[in-house]
Amino acid sequence: MWFMRQAGRSLPEYRAVRERHAFSDMVRRPEVAAEVTLQPVRRLGVDAAILFSDLITPVQAIVEGIDVHPGRGPVVEQPFRAKDDLDRLRPLEPELDLPYVAEAVRLVRAELDPATALIGFAGAPFTVASYLVEGGPSKTYEHTKALMYGEPALWTDLLERLAAVTVAALRAQVAAGAQAVQVFDSWAGALSAEDYRHHVLPASTLVFDGLADLGVPRIHFGVGTGHLLGLMAGAGADVVGVDWRTSLSEARRQVGPRCAVQGNLDPTALMAPDEVLDAKVEAVLDDNGGRPGHVFNLGWGVLPDTDPGQLRRVVDTVHAWGTDQ
Amino acid sequence: MWFMRQAGRSLPEYRAVRERHAFSDMVRRPEVAAEVTLQPVRRLGVDAAILFSDLITPVQAIVEGIDVHPGRGPVVEQPFRAKDDLDRLRPLEPELDLPYVAEAVRLVRAELDPATALIGFAGAPFTVASYLVEGGPSKTYEHTKALMYGEPALWTDLLERLAAVTVAALRAQVAAGAQAVQVFDSWAGALSAEDYRHHVLPASTLVFDGLADLGVPRIHFGVGTGHLLGLMAGAGADVVGVDWRTSLSEARRQVGPRCAVQGNLDPTALMAPDEVLDAKVEAVLDDNGGRPGHVFNLGWGVLPDTDPGQLRRVVDTVHAWGTDQ
Repeated sequence: MWFMRQAGRSLPEYRAVRERHAFSDMVRRPEVAAEVTLQPVRRLGVDAAILFSDLITPVQAIVEGIDVHPGRGPVVEQPFRAKDDLDRLRPLEPELDLPYVAEAVRLVRAELDPATALIGFAGAPFTVASYLVEGGPSKTYEHTKALMYGEPALWTDLLERLAAVTVAALRAQVAAGAQAVQVFDSWAGALSAEDYRHHVLPASTLVFDGLADLGVPRIHFGVGTGHLLGLMAGAGADVVGVDWRTSLSEARRQVGPRCAVQGNLDPTALMAPDEVLDAKVEAVLDDNGGRPGHVFNLGWGVLPDTDPGQLRRVVDTVHAWGTDQ
Repeated sequence: MWFMRQAGRSLPEYRAVRERHAFSDMVRRPEVAAEVTLQPVRRLGVDAAILFSDLITPVQAIVEGIDVHPGRGPVVEQPFRAKDDLDRLRPLEPELDLPYVAEAVRLVRAELDPATALIGFAGAPFTVASYLVEGGPSKTYEHTKALMYGEPALWTDLLERLAAVTVAALRAQVAAGAQAVQVFDSWAGALSAEDYRHHVLPASTLVFDGLADLGVPRIHFGVGTGHLLGLMAGAGADVVGVDWRTSLSEARRQVGPRCAVQGNLDPTALMAPDEVLDAKVEAVLDDNGGRPGHVFNLGWGVLPDTDPGQLRRVVDTVHAWGTDQ
């Protein structure tokens, strides 16, 4: 078990580091990225660390004018809208473009108990493309979908380039010591199943195929993807992330027996009184019913106002439940 | 067929009116509200008008310090978080509190072709509560859910009061001439099915029960509610709104034969080239397969940058399709 965004503002020790560094600097300074990656392992006792990074980090290293604004997210100065923009997206060379990421991975592995996994992390082509095309976070993805509908050849080219970037970034993380990877297609839930199947699944499949020979578990995650879970498993994932809108049993029905599931506590449950929180954690465990192939997690990232004591409480409940069975 | 947010910024004649009036003034001035309600009927040839209003309008009339900020949405100066806050939510008296709404309904009916329906409109208890508790729009609904989990009695009291407000507001609209109503539980999709069933469904059922004797079709809408459609039908709706993430056939499976479906074109399809747009409109019609009890609509509101010519194109395609069959 682990928590998405466990390395983040819910921890006072993270906020102390964050006060001294800009977000992008934290990602680019290996000793800082390693430190905040390790913090939740120390405090919460989770079974895995996830590399502190951003899903825009690899493209940020090769495209000018991308920044991560605190409280807003990635902002792209000149959004990608036309054929010429593709020239700005050259292939990623991780040794040259992202040396600090591999170094952070090595620093984390050197300190981490061998029983604790380190999960590498990158964005899926659609979600990264949505930032590049919209120019920042969006509620509607209207420019992204307009490009997808209106210029399918350009769209496919863009997504294939981004798939190659993601593969290169994740292979470098695994080479440096990451023992699993999570591919974040955070916003894929905005797509209909038909649009996902035709315009996104091929590129996401390239990502999972491009990692297959590494032999590490590949997690595929998005939020609000209850209608896409079968397709997301079909991309080649070993584990599919599920949010609280879909039960784990329904998720298993969709992803099939070959695929494990990850999730799916509502992050707001951490704001509830102890007995409500405990009941909700146990409801997730009951829903899974002790079946193998369940990674306990939230359905989305830890909220900044979460009390770390409550995160620890969830870890202890989940670990104790495993022992009882 | 009609379009959610058809009376809005996509129409130049709306923007011309909007330039001269603040949003809240447009709602409160019957001749202005009536004018913008009628604009899309004239230009687009839709089969129904929907009253120009806001889902916060009824509570705005009885609670101090609520405003609608352009581009942001409703903002509540002092969020509802404690027992004392309930005292600020007295029963709605539509004749005294919302005389302008009934007057706008009468003005619209006087001008509207009898073959064109006028749909009344109000927010469902959960969605209105989310604005009151968060203090404005939210991505996480963390304060709302914290109240729901932590103070269930207070939560229930709040939702029952809001149900009564919604019933009173909608009964007044029907009394003045509205021939159908749509209850917007726009953000209910943020809830798990369990949370919806326990904490929201009872109050929403009060709303639909409170309108049952009027004999007008009652539409129940939310976005991202593919996991809740059966429950939303069970609240007592005659029609359930469906977004593009769920096929109409899957929606029908969930809502059962008693209930009609409304939807579900992705609003971003209007940004696509003609042939893609046509194919997507036809895919919705094919998905419905000519079954009765389908209200063609978008899965969410018209985007402000939409070309009204493309909206008209959709209307014509849908009307022609009906003739062909």
